[in-house]
Amino acid sequence: MHIGLIGLGKMGGNMRTRLRNAGIEVTGFDQNPDVCDVATVEELIAALPSPRTIWVMVPAGKITSSVVADLSDRLDAGDLVIDGGNSRFTEDFKNAELLAAKGIDYIDVGVSGGVWGLENGYGLMVGGSTAQVERLMPVFDALRPEGPREEGFVHVGEVGAGHYAKMVHNGIEYALMQAYAEGFELLEKREDIIRDVPGTFKAWQRGTVVRSWLLELLVRALDEDDDLSEIEGYVEDSGEGRWTIEEAVANAVPVPTISASIFARFVSRQDDSPAMKAVAALRNQFGGHSVKKSDD
Amino acid sequence: MHIGLIGLGKMGGNMRTRLRNAGIEVTGFDQNPDVCDVATVEELIAALPSPRTIWVMVPAGKITSSVVADLSDRLDAGDLVIDGGNSRFTEDFKNAELLAAKGIDYIDVGVSGGVWGLENGYGLMVGGSTAQVERLMPVFDALRPEGPREEGFVHVGEVGAGHYAKMVHNGIEYALMQAYAEGFELLEKREDIIRDVPGTFKAWQRGTVVRSWLLELLVRALDEDDDLSEIEGYVEDSGEGRWTIEEAVANAVPVPTISASIFARFVSRQDDSPAMKAVAALRNQFGGHSVKKSDD
Amino acid sequence: MHIGLIGLGKMGGNMRTRLRNAGIEVTGFDQNPDVCDVATVEELIAALPSPRTIWVMVPAGKITSSVVADLSDRLDAGDLVIDGGNSRFTEDFKNAELLAAKGIDYIDVGVSGGVWGLENGYGLMVGGSTAQVERLMPVFDALRPEGPREEGFVHVGEVGAGHYAKMVHNGIEYALMQAYAEGFELLEKREDIIRDVPGTFKAWQRGTVVRSWLLELLVRALDEDDDLSEIEGYVEDSGEGRWTIEEAVANAVPVPTISASIFARFVSRQDDSPAMKAVAALRNQFGGHSVKKSDD
Amino acid sequence: MHIGLIGLGKMGGNMRTRLRNAGIEVTGFDQNPDVCDVATVEELIAALPSPRTIWVMVPAGKITSSVVADLSDRLDAGDLVIDGGNSRFTEDFKNAELLAAKGIDYIDVGVSGGVWGLENGYGLMVGGSTAQVERLMPVFDALRPEGPREEGFVHVGEVGAGHYAKMVHNGIEYALMQAYAEGFELLEKREDIIRDVPGTFKAWQRGTVVRSWLLELLVRALDEDDDLSEIEGYVEDSGEGRWTIEEAVANAVPVPTISASIFARFVSRQDDSPAMKAVAALRNQFGGHSVKKSDD
Repeated sequence: MHIGLIGLGKMGGNMRTRLRNAGIEVTGFDQNPDVCDVATVEELIAALPSPRTIWVMVPAGKITSSVVADLSDRLDAGDLVIDGGNSRFTEDFKNAELLAAKGIDYIDVGVSGGVWGLENGYGLMVGGSTAQVERLMPVFDALRPEGPREEGFVHVGEVGAGHYAKMVHNGIEYALMQAYAEGFELLEKREDIIRDVPGTFKAWQRGTVVRSWLLELLVRALDEDDDLSEIEGYVEDSGEGRWTIEEAVANAVPVPTISASIFARFVSRQDDSPAMKAVAALRNQFGGHSVKKSDD
Repeated sequence: MHIGLIGLGKMGGNMRTRLRNAGIEVTGFDQNPDVCDVATVEELIAALPSPRTIWVMVPAGKITSSVVADLSDRLDAGDLVIDGGNSRFTEDFKNAELLAAKGIDYIDVGVSGGVWGLENGYGLMVGGSTAQVERLMPVFDALRPEGPREEGFVHVGEVGAGHYAKMVHNGIEYALMQAYAEGFELLEKREDIIRDVPGTFKAWQRGTVVRSWLLELLVRALDEDDDLSEIEGYVEDSGEGRWTIEEAVANAVPVPTISASIFARFVSRQDDSPAMKAVAALRNQFGGHSVKKSDD
Repeated sequence: MHIGLIGLGKMGGNMRTRLRNAGIEVTGFDQNPDVCDVATVEELIAALPSPRTIWVMVPAGKITSSVVADLSDRLDAGDLVIDGGNSRFTEDFKNAELLAAKGIDYIDVGVSGGVWGLENGYGLMVGGSTAQVERLMPVFDALRPEGPREEGFVHVGEVGAGHYAKMVHNGIEYALMQAYAEGFELLEKREDIIRDVPGTFKAWQRGTVVRSWLLELLVRALDEDDDLSEIEGYVEDSGEGRWTIEEAVANAVPVPTISASIFARFVSRQDDSPAMKAVAALRNQFGGHSVKKSDD
Repeated sequence: MHIGLIGLGKMGGNMRTRLRNAGIEVTGFDQNPDVCDVATVEELIAALPSPRTIWVMVPAGKITSSVVADLSDRLDAGDLVIDGGNSRFTEDFKNAELLAAKGIDYIDVGVSGGVWGLENGYGLMVGGSTAQVERLMPVFDALRPEGPREEGFVHVGEVGAGHYAKMVHNGIEYALMQAYAEGFELLEKREDIIRDVPGTFKAWQRGTVVRSWLLELLVRALDEDDDLSEIEGYVEDSGEGRWTIEEAVANAVPVPTISASIFARFVSRQDDSPAMKAVAALRNQFGGHSVKKSDD
């Protein structure tokens, strides 16, 4: 099998390697010429056997949209475009429609695993037609982890389903991380009692109810920096968590832990909180409680 | 009527004034000799007619306990001690028992109104025996706001009930403040749309569903500092909110907004968040996402 | 002044009365012929002096959109359409654009006050051009509560600002209601201590920090049904709260109490919770904890 | 090595088996004579070599307290009592003090692993003196999972530290479960998109960021009942989560996801929500929104 891969960053680059290791032929293109197999998308298209299969692995949003739009102009009926980025599932409906007008097929794949995927394989959640998914199974089998196929790969439904599943996966991920983080703070706060915080997390890796891959990663982080004093408590979010909340709200699904996780990230990025200024101002008004003056 | 008042701070001092304005005779004692009517608690006790009534208005916790313990040694059977401070209701059971052993009666009063109480009157929530509550009605009527008695005074139940009601009152208060504060931040954040944030709050004072005394106080605060730039978003808490959550947890009552309000205050006081360090560390581990290094 | 009013339901009908009481001439149309002043929108338009002013007060969403679209076909350049419904502010941009193409002007008004507005007046938050807002001041003065204009009316900004402010108002409102509701449950749960729950709320109406109009409404509700035993804990939501959360998420504003309030409503409408089935299933799997079988 | 074990229920019974499989001699006693090795605690004490080691594995709270009190009367100086139950760490201070007065030593052990511990081993968090912990290592090695000792066992600190760590472990566990549960509901709700909810969870077991033991258990649960239709969404809590929140509140640690998890359980057990009755009543009061009558 021979596929094209557009986007050779942290994720795409590793995926190319993993695919090649499994015997899949890959022609890769990226904005960065140092990592490219071909100089242009045109060359990439020319290099592929027909019907062509092109996996797009670029940042979600405008960049993905423009790559898909460009491909819709260049590809032929019968070709297939796969979006493996962290796109919102609603984008898939637009992409599929745009491509279908040219007879080009579309599949969306939610890909999990981060920088560990090269070694461990990637968890794959796929949306699209059964025919195309079956045709692509060698690619999916190359990317997914060792072990039973159904433990690292799922054909979730029609177009959009892969990214919907990935969105929910990431929403869960946010809350899992926050849960361990709250536990970390509870242990840190009572170092009069807990003499070995990293050791406690380490000991949770076997036999306990909370054992998980994220726990193992926290153990690694604490091995490197045992009280995380070198890291600032500042956390970005990349969109999927927000979409999860929007979907939850649109569908009347209560998501208190996922939303709490996102809100904690928002707060972590604020120099000062307008809301808490207002609370401080109110306390001062009714109780004469003193306020801290801003430094400026 | 003639009562003793121990504690003449921000609350007690104003209460003495309001009581005297209503014709109640008050003998006051405080640690601060500048505001005292008598030099010692002994003198205060000697000044009061029997059976004596002493209203304690000192900081909750150890100080209140030691004042009550001291009074239990000095007063006579038939006397009455009132705790009007922000004590936890569980303290009332101990205080009442200690005093009852000497034949001294006890009443707890939750007092709301802050620095505005002198002018507006104080909302009163009272726990104790009907006989004692009825005997004290002139005092309560002097302290409570103008208007129908039942709109600013309630005999909530036996000993402890007054402070329980006050605790819940304060728990609600925390969440109300947080609600307005979140609204403030939402308006501030979209100053491209909302050209007049203080004016918006001002306009909510009449006719709207959100009108309240707290809203009026926020309007006052915004009159003084229209974007609250002079105030830091740092908020203390004085205990009642925590007790509310502990009671909620003990009684299996879900209190998501009250707990969110307390947690927001906790976060507002952190220089850096241990929990968010852990989340940042985790993101770095699985995704290679960059972290901010601490400044030190 | 003479305006048209489309929509004479619970809100629009009362607004017509209040406008007429203030000497504003109103020609009203509604789907329900029993309350109409004219039989068709065509007649309503014919009845108005030029430039015409038509206040639309119909359910937000498709109905409002279709009324505005219809008016855009029928009105003349220089006329003015006002949307006073609970529309999402993003709809205002579309409405204004559609109408502007025909030279028709547009104003959005967030209206608060519910069924009490007839008597108390309506809190008004207005978005649009200063010229049009000034021209309409007699209408706004008729609708808003007695008292200083700025305490019941605000010109918040350009088109969309009125509904944005109303959206935030309603988000706050959700959290305020939830705060009192949590307090109610805390008091109810300890009826061994709190002998008079309705009396406690009643006594909070004067002097306390939590006094508000919503509190007064809760007192009314408890006057009618002292333990709310006749009411089911089932609560709808009408959209503004959801939009508030979506805006918060889009702008990285933490809104823990507003979101908690919405989620509590979602839960209140579920016969059974899929999420809690999953938690029950997990506890059963790891701990052998028994589960409740459905329909047992 | 030969130890006594009091409590042979779901946990204790399996632990006896696992200990014996590893060559530790165990004399067990339980209220239930069918599972006992000896008929009385007196016989158990008589059967043990001196200094005696007795592991208590009974329900936390009063039962554990009374067993420890009883042992304090019967054991000799130099003996050792271990509490392996889910006791609150504050109980450890009392137990240790009571036993120390007789010269008896005390260790607390948080034990995780549930019904799977027999096969997988138990995660162990231990508090107490280094001397005693070292003496007991053969017991701990027998109980803990295969693999490096530090991945399934930790000596956390002095007395109380083991149960403190276990408490935090369980607090985290609550939030992890809730996170997956919210994800389950989000997937279930959009079965128009997600055609295979169990298959999605199954596919998350390898390669993804959310892989964990709890996820594997959810996959097992969905294997048995693919939409959990046979299970009611009713979830008990056994105390540790509540203590976690109380500790968090006492130490000003924000725990939004852990508290949300507990509150979700509280709600799951309510036939009707007093709080939501109050919200419904308020909406009815201000907006004339209809309410559902109870029992209609």
